[in-house]
Amino acid sequence: MTAEADALAAADAGLEESIARWIELLRIPSISTDPAYRGDCRKAGAWLVGTLSALRFDASLRDTPGHPMVVAHYRARARKGRLPHVLFYGHYDVQPADPLEKWQTPPFEPTRRRDKDGVERVYARGAADDKGQLLTFVEACRVWLATTGDLPLDVSVLCEGEEESGSPSLIPFLKANRKELAHDVALVCDTNMWDSKTPAITTRLRGLLHDEVTIIGPKVDLHSGLYGGAAMNPIRVLAKIITDMHDRNGRIAIPGFYEGVKEPPKATREQWAKLKFSERKFLAEVGLKEKAGEAKRSVLEQIWSRPTAEVNGIIGGYTGPGTKTVIPSQASAKLSFRLVAGQQPERLRKALHAFVRSRLPAGIKAEFHGEGGASPAIEINEDNPYLTAAGAALKAEFGRAPVMMGCGGSIPIVSSFKEILGMESLLVGFGLNDDAIHSPNEKYDVASFQHGIRSWIRIMPSLASVGR
Amino acid sequence: MTAEADALAAADAGLEESIARWIELLRIPSISTDPAYRGDCRKAGAWLVGTLSALRFDASLRDTPGHPMVVAHYRARARKGRLPHVLFYGHYDVQPADPLEKWQTPPFEPTRRRDKDGVERVYARGAADDKGQLLTFVEACRVWLATTGDLPLDVSVLCEGEEESGSPSLIPFLKANRKELAHDVALVCDTNMWDSKTPAITTRLRGLLHDEVTIIGPKVDLHSGLYGGAAMNPIRVLAKIITDMHDRNGRIAIPGFYEGVKEPPKATREQWAKLKFSERKFLAEVGLKEKAGEAKRSVLEQIWSRPTAEVNGIIGGYTGPGTKTVIPSQASAKLSFRLVAGQQPERLRKALHAFVRSRLPAGIKAEFHGEGGASPAIEINEDNPYLTAAGAALKAEFGRAPVMMGCGGSIPIVSSFKEILGMESLLVGFGLNDDAIHSPNEKYDVASFQHGIRSWIRIMPSLASVGR
Repeated sequence: MTAEADALAAADAGLEESIARWIELLRIPSISTDPAYRGDCRKAGAWLVGTLSALRFDASLRDTPGHPMVVAHYRARARKGRLPHVLFYGHYDVQPADPLEKWQTPPFEPTRRRDKDGVERVYARGAADDKGQLLTFVEACRVWLATTGDLPLDVSVLCEGEEESGSPSLIPFLKANRKELAHDVALVCDTNMWDSKTPAITTRLRGLLHDEVTIIGPKVDLHSGLYGGAAMNPIRVLAKIITDMHDRNGRIAIPGFYEGVKEPPKATREQWAKLKFSERKFLAEVGLKEKAGEAKRSVLEQIWSRPTAEVNGIIGGYTGPGTKTVIPSQASAKLSFRLVAGQQPERLRKALHAFVRSRLPAGIKAEFHGEGGASPAIEINEDNPYLTAAGAALKAEFGRAPVMMGCGGSIPIVSSFKEILGMESLLVGFGLNDDAIHSPNEKYDVASFQHGIRSWIRIMPSLASVGR
Repeated sequence: MTAEADALAAADAGLEESIARWIELLRIPSISTDPAYRGDCRKAGAWLVGTLSALRFDASLRDTPGHPMVVAHYRARARKGRLPHVLFYGHYDVQPADPLEKWQTPPFEPTRRRDKDGVERVYARGAADDKGQLLTFVEACRVWLATTGDLPLDVSVLCEGEEESGSPSLIPFLKANRKELAHDVALVCDTNMWDSKTPAITTRLRGLLHDEVTIIGPKVDLHSGLYGGAAMNPIRVLAKIITDMHDRNGRIAIPGFYEGVKEPPKATREQWAKLKFSERKFLAEVGLKEKAGEAKRSVLEQIWSRPTAEVNGIIGGYTGPGTKTVIPSQASAKLSFRLVAGQQPERLRKALHAFVRSRLPAGIKAEFHGEGGASPAIEINEDNPYLTAAGAALKAEFGRAPVMMGCGGSIPIVSSFKEILGMESLLVGFGLNDDAIHSPNEKYDVASFQHGIRSWIRIMPSLASVGR
């Protein structure tokens, strides 16, 4: 038997003990947004430091102005040639549990049960996000150390306690500890699988550009009887700008908007086309019937690989009860654009402003408020050797290749790792769409937990081989 | 000398006494919206009853659930053939005076002064609206009675005390006293002249149709990262509807919208074209540069004789501080349409609903809230013999023909007289645009007051001749 096969067998044999530790961590109500749980956050961090120290990591709890960071290092003893050094990232804090009355079992009394569909799950706040996910890696390390007395590569661990409350301490901490934390690649375990049988690596995270436009017409609200017909209504001007922002085929019509946008690799597009994904069901779940957006793009293409232009909010004139016959002085819209790789946020902001200004009738002004709110998209090159190595390990575990998924939203830590530590991230997680993270009755499948441990057991040596 | 010439001379001779009575009425702070002035409202009504009784009108103060009505009748003794019977309408209540600190002289201590431009004015709350205006008619009656012992026609007077607070008692009162109040024509003295040298009769009052549309997309607000691109945004749908509501030439594009709309008579259009009216100045005063609306229509045509489609308010999605990356579940707009004669409000409402529904993508819904808020436009036929008679009298007084003005807004009393009493109204007033009604430092020119008295002295026999 190989060392990896030994480790996998040991992981299965030790699963109950792994679950027991997971449940122990879930009992600590480490809600980071609520000052009442400040002590519990520290307790969860200390629990991780204790656990990692027991595994012979050089682990410590590092104070920040907020909740403390867990930092731990393990330097492999067996060193044939250059060994890669990975930084594993997770977070030990959790979302608040309210509304409490919607939980079937108490959020901080973890409940393991086999549901009617035959699937065994652990229910608790944080079961998946991110305590269950991050422990898959810690348990994988434990198994490697128990079976071989060593890890296949150099490992650092960074767990924060403020991910659910905006990570205010993270960027200063990364900047202050750049040398200690910057390594070959980051492993971020906070994402999902495609489904319970199909692993995934998230390779595309859309960026985001915010702006707010205010259209200013008459200097005061006007009486619509005395001025109606002759005075330009700024709501009309704003509506026209919003309408013009998409063409008839759902493409964004701001000049230069698609500059630099590339199609995903052919293999990825083919993989997406083959996925069993019901667009109808995806839309019906939120009460919609027909997809919007670019006419000839599938929903998955749209949310994983295409930029958007959205109006997140609009307000103007009288919005109280009843009626008021005014032509308002102004109207505003909050706009946001999801960006993909190749798009430059600040260049697009300029293009947006020019687009708006070119649509202003004489005497009507536009003001913009939104400077600063922009982050570029992240795209992990699918030829990245670490990604290829992790993909091969996941394929070995699940019997099928991982889906190269996109993520419609952004995961700020990935940008921070890239910008501050100069490090790419590998986003591998074992969550499922129905895990109810941030909602009542959060759960994580026992199979997710077990697959997670086994996957990391396989990924570690696979990544180690990249160095050679 | 004719009786009319005698009366005009007597009016001029008695002007100081007329002004003294006007100032007496202005001293009563009859603010109808503020319960603290309830007694003063009654006092102003009683003052009118006393004044009219002294003129041998059969006058009484009639209680309502709110402030009392003044009703008075005078039946002419000299009766050659059928005499017309007019109902004169005015209101004795006034707007609140705040902000008090902006008044140069106290609002209820009427101040008569000759301003630097050489014009003599009386400053007080209600100086114009409507105490000064209504007294022009009462004083004209006084002069006729003093000089001839009779009035040239049958006169009833109705003065309400709730015009500035929504006239809640008016419609029930009209309905309950239909027989007593329904006569040949109503004289409403609450409008303006074209300028200080040019009289006017207001012949067009636009109607009004209110509606509110809510566009409903996804059943909850969606995360713009997870759904952006694929999910239809109801703000976009609403913006497109608003945009489509006008065509490129500023015409309203709702099918059937202009059905029944007629051009004003050629003579009226020619009169309007000749008026000295600076569109640039009219727009610049409210901070605008260029007129909106139908491309080839002048501003006066637009606000006096053309219908409009306005958005009075719009709201949807996140409108608080900062940003929120949602695709909102819904968005709403308050719409209002100024209508002209020939348009049927409820028919247009149906056309609007069809217009909106035809623009809904599959799965997107529209709800409407606004039933009930509709009133048709009023247009006084310019061939109406009473109007012709009043116009001739005004021309005799001012030396120039009255402008047949439109009024962009509605004057509800005119609809009520038509609907409940079956009576047309003749809108003749002597206010000026700079009278600052509803504002601090309200005033009425002494010349307006004098021209008003003299005009009614001329109008009464002129109307009487219509019967013959």
